[in-house]
Amino acid sequence: MALAKVYVNYKKSILNPEAEAVHKALKRLGYSDVEDVKLGKYFELTVADGKTKAELDAEINEICDKLLANYNMENYHYEIVETEAAQ
Amino acid sequence: MALAKVYVNYKKSILNPEAEAVHKALKRLGYSDVEDVKLGKYFELTVADGKTKAELDAEINEICDKLLANYNMENYHYEIVETEAAQ
Repeated sequence: MALAKVYVNYKKSILNPEAEAVHKALKRLGYSDVEDVKLGKYFELTVADGKTKAELDAEINEICDKLLANYNMENYHYEIVETEAAQ
Repeated sequence: MALAKVYVNYKKSILNPEAEAVHKALKRLGYSDVEDVKLGKYFELTVADGKTKAELDAEINEICDKLLANYNMENYHYEIVETEAAQ
């Protein structure tokens, strides 16, 4: 089996009020050395065996484009890790 | 500067309807080989220099406990990466 770890973050030009709120809360709590906070989504997709690395790569890319990330506002990157039953 | 990458995920016993919805959507789109979907949050905290590794570690742990994760429902793990101006 393969595990795809997908990270989806807002583009730099997009305001992220939730990350802002966390940053302000940290300042209020006294963590003034935290200079920046980014907040995104983290997906873990477990994919069945039977695909080559290239096919898997293409599939994850397609899934990100179609469903997981909004390409107008978000960037994504991912890594694919083989788990126990590696092919 | 240091970059703390924090991953916050729901515990296994907690239902995550958003991850369920993504999983169902993937099935509908024909990606039937995706067997499981997990969805969590991904934080990147940029922290100023001036702390030892142990102090930084303690600070990030504290921040996760106090603010980023809800220990009743969520697990977290993190990694700390030194960026350009490494001490």
